[in-house]
Amino acid sequence: MKYVSILPSICYGGDYNPEQWPEEIWREDAKLMQKAGVNLVSLGIFSWGEIEPCEGVFNFEWLDKVIDILYSHGVYINLGTATATTPAWFVKKYPDSLPVDENGTRLSFGSRQHYCPNHPQLVVHIKKLARAIAQRYKNHPALKMWHVNNEYACHTSRCFCENCAIAFRKWLKARYKTIDELNNRWGTSFWGQRYNDWDEINPPRKTPTFVNPSQELDYYRFMNDSIFSLFLAEKEVLREVTPNIPLSTNFMASFKPLNYFQWAQEVDIVTWDSYPDPRERLPIQHAMMNDLMRSLRQGQPFLLMEQVTSHVNWRDINVPKPPGVMRLWSYATIGRGADGIMFFQWRQSRAGAEKFHGAMVPHSSSENSRVYREVKKLGRELKKLDCLIGSRIKAEIAIIFDWENWWAVELGSKPHNKLSYISLVESYYRELYKRNIAVDFIRPVDDLSKYKVVIAPLLYMVKEGEDENLRRFVANGGTLIVTFFSGIVDENDHIHLGGYPAPLRDILGICVEEFVPYPEGQTNKIRVEGEEYECTTWTDIIHLEGAEPLAVYGEDWYAGSPAVTRHFFGRGESIYIGTSPDSKYLGRLLEYVLTEHNINPPLKVPENVEVQQRYTEKERYLIIVNHNSHEVQLSLPADRLYQDVLNGKRLQINQLVVQGIDVAVLKEVRRI
Amino acid sequence: MKYVSILPSICYGGDYNPEQWPEEIWREDAKLMQKAGVNLVSLGIFSWGEIEPCEGVFNFEWLDKVIDILYSHGVYINLGTATATTPAWFVKKYPDSLPVDENGTRLSFGSRQHYCPNHPQLVVHIKKLARAIAQRYKNHPALKMWHVNNEYACHTSRCFCENCAIAFRKWLKARYKTIDELNNRWGTSFWGQRYNDWDEINPPRKTPTFVNPSQELDYYRFMNDSIFSLFLAEKEVLREVTPNIPLSTNFMASFKPLNYFQWAQEVDIVTWDSYPDPRERLPIQHAMMNDLMRSLRQGQPFLLMEQVTSHVNWRDINVPKPPGVMRLWSYATIGRGADGIMFFQWRQSRAGAEKFHGAMVPHSSSENSRVYREVKKLGRELKKLDCLIGSRIKAEIAIIFDWENWWAVELGSKPHNKLSYISLVESYYRELYKRNIAVDFIRPVDDLSKYKVVIAPLLYMVKEGEDENLRRFVANGGTLIVTFFSGIVDENDHIHLGGYPAPLRDILGICVEEFVPYPEGQTNKIRVEGEEYECTTWTDIIHLEGAEPLAVYGEDWYAGSPAVTRHFFGRGESIYIGTSPDSKYLGRLLEYVLTEHNINPPLKVPENVEVQQRYTEKERYLIIVNHNSHEVQLSLPADRLYQDVLNGKRLQINQLVVQGIDVAVLKEVRRI
Amino acid sequence: MKYVSILPSICYGGDYNPEQWPEEIWREDAKLMQKAGVNLVSLGIFSWGEIEPCEGVFNFEWLDKVIDILYSHGVYINLGTATATTPAWFVKKYPDSLPVDENGTRLSFGSRQHYCPNHPQLVVHIKKLARAIAQRYKNHPALKMWHVNNEYACHTSRCFCENCAIAFRKWLKARYKTIDELNNRWGTSFWGQRYNDWDEINPPRKTPTFVNPSQELDYYRFMNDSIFSLFLAEKEVLREVTPNIPLSTNFMASFKPLNYFQWAQEVDIVTWDSYPDPRERLPIQHAMMNDLMRSLRQGQPFLLMEQVTSHVNWRDINVPKPPGVMRLWSYATIGRGADGIMFFQWRQSRAGAEKFHGAMVPHSSSENSRVYREVKKLGRELKKLDCLIGSRIKAEIAIIFDWENWWAVELGSKPHNKLSYISLVESYYRELYKRNIAVDFIRPVDDLSKYKVVIAPLLYMVKEGEDENLRRFVANGGTLIVTFFSGIVDENDHIHLGGYPAPLRDILGICVEEFVPYPEGQTNKIRVEGEEYECTTWTDIIHLEGAEPLAVYGEDWYAGSPAVTRHFFGRGESIYIGTSPDSKYLGRLLEYVLTEHNINPPLKVPENVEVQQRYTEKERYLIIVNHNSHEVQLSLPADRLYQDVLNGKRLQINQLVVQGIDVAVLKEVRRI
Repeated sequence: MKYVSILPSICYGGDYNPEQWPEEIWREDAKLMQKAGVNLVSLGIFSWGEIEPCEGVFNFEWLDKVIDILYSHGVYINLGTATATTPAWFVKKYPDSLPVDENGTRLSFGSRQHYCPNHPQLVVHIKKLARAIAQRYKNHPALKMWHVNNEYACHTSRCFCENCAIAFRKWLKARYKTIDELNNRWGTSFWGQRYNDWDEINPPRKTPTFVNPSQELDYYRFMNDSIFSLFLAEKEVLREVTPNIPLSTNFMASFKPLNYFQWAQEVDIVTWDSYPDPRERLPIQHAMMNDLMRSLRQGQPFLLMEQVTSHVNWRDINVPKPPGVMRLWSYATIGRGADGIMFFQWRQSRAGAEKFHGAMVPHSSSENSRVYREVKKLGRELKKLDCLIGSRIKAEIAIIFDWENWWAVELGSKPHNKLSYISLVESYYRELYKRNIAVDFIRPVDDLSKYKVVIAPLLYMVKEGEDENLRRFVANGGTLIVTFFSGIVDENDHIHLGGYPAPLRDILGICVEEFVPYPEGQTNKIRVEGEEYECTTWTDIIHLEGAEPLAVYGEDWYAGSPAVTRHFFGRGESIYIGTSPDSKYLGRLLEYVLTEHNINPPLKVPENVEVQQRYTEKERYLIIVNHNSHEVQLSLPADRLYQDVLNGKRLQINQLVVQGIDVAVLKEVRRI
Repeated sequence: MKYVSILPSICYGGDYNPEQWPEEIWREDAKLMQKAGVNLVSLGIFSWGEIEPCEGVFNFEWLDKVIDILYSHGVYINLGTATATTPAWFVKKYPDSLPVDENGTRLSFGSRQHYCPNHPQLVVHIKKLARAIAQRYKNHPALKMWHVNNEYACHTSRCFCENCAIAFRKWLKARYKTIDELNNRWGTSFWGQRYNDWDEINPPRKTPTFVNPSQELDYYRFMNDSIFSLFLAEKEVLREVTPNIPLSTNFMASFKPLNYFQWAQEVDIVTWDSYPDPRERLPIQHAMMNDLMRSLRQGQPFLLMEQVTSHVNWRDINVPKPPGVMRLWSYATIGRGADGIMFFQWRQSRAGAEKFHGAMVPHSSSENSRVYREVKKLGRELKKLDCLIGSRIKAEIAIIFDWENWWAVELGSKPHNKLSYISLVESYYRELYKRNIAVDFIRPVDDLSKYKVVIAPLLYMVKEGEDENLRRFVANGGTLIVTFFSGIVDENDHIHLGGYPAPLRDILGICVEEFVPYPEGQTNKIRVEGEEYECTTWTDIIHLEGAEPLAVYGEDWYAGSPAVTRHFFGRGESIYIGTSPDSKYLGRLLEYVLTEHNINPPLKVPENVEVQQRYTEKERYLIIVNHNSHEVQLSLPADRLYQDVLNGKRLQINQLVVQGIDVAVLKEVRRI
Repeated sequence: MKYVSILPSICYGGDYNPEQWPEEIWREDAKLMQKAGVNLVSLGIFSWGEIEPCEGVFNFEWLDKVIDILYSHGVYINLGTATATTPAWFVKKYPDSLPVDENGTRLSFGSRQHYCPNHPQLVVHIKKLARAIAQRYKNHPALKMWHVNNEYACHTSRCFCENCAIAFRKWLKARYKTIDELNNRWGTSFWGQRYNDWDEINPPRKTPTFVNPSQELDYYRFMNDSIFSLFLAEKEVLREVTPNIPLSTNFMASFKPLNYFQWAQEVDIVTWDSYPDPRERLPIQHAMMNDLMRSLRQGQPFLLMEQVTSHVNWRDINVPKPPGVMRLWSYATIGRGADGIMFFQWRQSRAGAEKFHGAMVPHSSSENSRVYREVKKLGRELKKLDCLIGSRIKAEIAIIFDWENWWAVELGSKPHNKLSYISLVESYYRELYKRNIAVDFIRPVDDLSKYKVVIAPLLYMVKEGEDENLRRFVANGGTLIVTFFSGIVDENDHIHLGGYPAPLRDILGICVEEFVPYPEGQTNKIRVEGEEYECTTWTDIIHLEGAEPLAVYGEDWYAGSPAVTRHFFGRGESIYIGTSPDSKYLGRLLEYVLTEHNINPPLKVPENVEVQQRYTEKERYLIIVNHNSHEVQLSLPADRLYQDVLNGKRLQINQLVVQGIDVAVLKEVRRI
């Protein structure tokens, strides 16, 4: 996988929707962009109806003009394929292209993304459109990238219509070949659900009670694949017409319906959209998502395709980012591997459902507005970071993340039906984040050999071969950390029989006999060497089968029984955590593991200071982000020399002061 | 606009549904009515199926008999047109007359108001029915008033069926003429929503995400107009057959779907229904709604068409009014301009969904019941108030209230999506209520010249010409108070560009750069001259452009910046309030303004005593309502003489004692 | 009504679903059953699709084999009729057999119980299926019982489809004969709901507002009858083919949609399913339901057909029963009249929506698992209780329980719309439970002469003749306790006019003038002889008409007026409780009544110890259940001798120690 950067600089810009504005504004915009250091804009995303106002009639003149104006101001184009929303004429011609919810309600035109991915005419029309656009602009020098569709599935991730039913049956037939095999994989002998014929099968529409979970799981897979095939259809056309233009589609990180590990194999660069709530003081989940997105293509740099300068419009309460926070979080993103910082959107809309969504140019159009001033300051500053393009993060620890597991573990009728996969993963990630330990995310089937430590939170589903991968990792000297409710089912959501967690029992040296889920507010204690910590959410009743207890429960009828265990296996060790311990215990445990493996942060820093390192082939950069509102003083290793990249000066002493809500980028130079 | 009173006395009575009772009860009822001083009942409201049991077959005999019996007991008739609910035979014949919700579910017969206002046969049938009833009773001496339909839209204010789609397109075509104009007004270049043809347009049915807000706003307008046209159709028939009988339809005050300012122009007298929760100690919202309803027709007296003697049935918990409270609140209503006090309903139903809704005669039928005794006492007492008929309130202060603004400001995807227009208006009204300052409600286009002070809370939408009206008012010496999130959009819900609140910036002397909405529970401080007050909900970041700060924020990153400003403009001044201050600050600010304009309450009274004045051409009446459970002593101006209207006696000294939960009505006589 | 026991021993076993497992597991299961003392399993409940894989083709071979294997291990069969879920081929052939919800959404195949009870082909097919199964196994010696369908209506208790509309009209016509009578009984003169023709009537689908309550009430009756007719259809076939095999269908106790008093007349033995949340310390509602289920057939023993060994899967948080609790609660069930303790299910499923529902054999299959060990221990122990088979409970006090009243009192638009019938009943039951006083449940029309005290909580609906039954009971010397909101309506949900509670006023010697419902959190006081107690939920304003006050309200405008009254009537007395007093007052009041009637518990025991007595013709057994985690010491009457049934030994002294979470069963022997 070779990384191809879009521009030789940090990409900077945003979504641009000129069709919402008269032509005189286009020229004003181009000038403002130039002033602000904008070098890339995403164009045409929602323009199907403008480009193809009636079926087969194309109108490119306005777009030609916009692209020329922008190009003449040094702005390159990330060109949309305009398929994000089907136009009114398409909906009128194919009313059954509108999606249907699980209750059978057919949704209506008037917002966006109102299409069923399995309507047979949809793929025909989007290919025709993509081809027309690609043909038109294939030789335009401004064209640097394709923006295929937009936030696939964000509003319509599931459809339950008849076209979907037909496609689902076809998909199932391809997967299972015979109806007997489907019955077996879906466990239809339960509750008398046996099928005799493919056409008896439907999407998991509303039923009297719990629907077959294997059916639900396959519907997640099927809908992901259905939507993915739309992307592949466009990709095929674009590759044919413009084989040298990289393409992507913007992901949404912790977006459950789409398996981005699968998708990322087919984009040329990962791009994603991020909207943390400004009320969060530390953007931990944003950091986690940066790490996840970077991990999708083996650590390649990515673009932050959308963030907002200030506030969004779709929360109940949409607060602005306070002064400096947009810049701060942009650097935090670069620190985790971004080669571009883009916004939704350039100019705040005058009308429509997003007119109160922030932008680079606010409603006042004022160059003196706080927002535009911050945009301009950052845009100019980022020019100094060309050196970072293509540089990498190095992580010695990885967290397993698996979309299929996510789908399965959050299906209903579990011991605990309020478990959140993301939250559980985040509880482990947070401890690493706070300690500035770089972390990758990996699939359970991926090569683990480059990591010293692998964490598998809530790995409920262990598919064929995955246990063997983990077994090999530990046997070869790795440390594997596994939490409660892992190793429970196979790919069909069928129990691995023989004692939980059957496929991992030998690695972990334990057997879990019973689950005791906790309602919110209920706690237990875990005791370890005279210390006591709190645990919540879940407690496993664990039998040791070779492992030793690291901590025991303090209360309830299983007080004194193991809560956390360690097992030496091969040349490595595995740790099992049968509950959800508090942050103090998790920190203690992880610090023990990190010490054992000599995994260290780049710098020792005060709380709420984020430090990440990016490596080029020859150099190392430190990106330091001070989330505190007070200044912090940092000591740098005495054996190295540092250059402050933003002001170009070499540090005289190995001490650095970073102001509150401020950043530093240092280039490390080995002392000769 | 000439005021025509229905009766020469205070109207007193209620809804009467004799079809629920055998004939012998009719006679008993008439006697009980007579004893209780009832002079008007509303009849036949739900009687379509009784009057026209099959299509075209009319049965009036029972109604003839009822009316004769009542008339012979001195009771006049407010005759319903019986169109409140379509009968079963109509629904069977036209199943598509049943309304459809936004999910496409067609509602069923079995409750009430189950009709789509745009079914083409509906208007045909209601006109035929209204004509038949009018013809039958046009010469009956008991007929004093028409009660058209009933609580229009209370349960079915929106329908999304195909008939509505067709009518909506027609309505849009009439409004916008061309599809290009519609695209422009709806901002359909956003999210690729462009229409090519009228028949691509639908009601705002369920969509994948936020629907076009301009479309939603127009659907509010369209549904209001659709329902209004049903009223106008009946009115036309009634005017033709009975040109001298006044007509009305009962409003529901703070009822969002219907623009009552528009409706009120077409009724002969405003009538409305009020059901404050008896658990409220002070019926402030009820008072506000009285003032709003009175304002609809330029201050003309109105009828309280429905209230309940004791308790309703449709809340979760339906508590009775404690002894005396029904009388207390009736006087409070008269004090704000009512010429009639009517109830739903006369006799408590035996069956059906409202059998636990209170009435003037309870299930026991006992004349000795608390409820009937209170009804009788009030009915007899009100005979003494004939002198009030037609008298007016005089207000020097007005609050702007605009239904279209209400619709727009509560649409989704705003900076703050929990704002309640009514609550914000009420927060200002409350301070005036507590100080017994008379207040009118006006539209932003109305003549403001008769007021000294105008308050515009949350006037998000400022339509063409409205800013000029406000500008003129201030320029001519008025004081205008405007709150945050005002002047933001035009009639299409498109942003007024150029810096908020663009059309009002010159009047207010400010520019608002940013909005900081607050979640519930978050507060800030506002500081003014060493004092500190709390504010919530929202804070504007304000730049002064001629205005001076009256108060500044105490906290957060914009601490010290203006929260409240004053601007002298022309001969007047405007005050901008960029947040939602606590009651103490609002009281302080309003007292300053009232003092400045020499606006005073009629009397200085203790807390929780309501005093209102009504003026005839020659006389002035004070209606005093003591909401406290303890007695209060009031001092009256020394330079006047007073007569106690309820006991007929002249006050000997200008001191008045009002018992707890009691009232006084004084006639003021100027000392010669 | 003669009681026919299924086996000569306590039935012990569970649901068994061999179709989910390969044949080798069947043999393992049979051995494990034998070890655990299992003597009865329920088979084939969800096997329609296995038994009849295509229409008219039957496959019994697998079932033959299973039954033979089980029988050869001493296990008898409670054979399912396999009609719990219609198979996929049936749904494909009759898509309109799928149920429709009140919004018109047709539900889908994929969970269970997806059938409309009124589809005309359903009854044809289930009779054919039941006949085929009965014919096949009628002579098999293992067959001991029929398990008809399964948990009728648990997920689909209402359907609103066209087939239901047709059947509803037919049902109404049979009930009311003429449309005029229907109009009268439904009170359709309210809100203009009059029907002219039967085909204008529909199920109470979604309407704009409150639907006609009489229509809703009849729809409860109709759906209950519709589902009941499916049971009767199967029963007819089974009786014909196997006249000597008892049959039942498993009830769900406090299950609102089905009138089990009606159903119980047609089963041969009551069987029911119970799933109390293990987080409850005292299973009071479970006890109450045991008493209710036992009462359905005049005190005959019943089978607990389903409980779980440890945890279920369908709550949000599904916690396991701690060690010993399953045994404890099983004995508590036997103490209240059970002749069998059965589980859902034998072996925990590997796949499907219930795979995390506990079972007798867990996923590990381990004989050493806590769950299987507890199962085995209990199964073996129960062999010692053959002596209890057929023995009875004797109660001197009864609580009135009426399904039709339940339906009516929880319909909407009441004075208080959060009332829960079950909770109100439970508040009285709890006081008797805590005092170990045996209690029966009875219908208001049942013979009351065998009881000394009858409690009628929230008997809102008093149908014709029921007041006379209560009158007779009091006149003959009984004590009747009636609570607020009783005697309000007749069977049509029409008010009993003339002062609440009209049909009971003479018995109670009071008239209730007003209801004051309380929101949650609001309280009042009741005062009695210098003591003060709290009351909540509701307060009646009561006028005495012969009764004397036992307690008065302490607060609000009706302070000092009667809250609880007593009236001597004939040879008995009636007590009216116009509010919901706290447990202390209810306990005080009930103790007074119990003392008056010399009603005593079997033993005086510490708190949380349950003692029940079962009587055979000659002997008396005490079942003692210690819910405490500490041991308790009990004193037994000195004049009797006792044998410990579980260890077979005679007690040497009349003292008994019961360990924490432990039980004792004593046989009483009169000292000669």
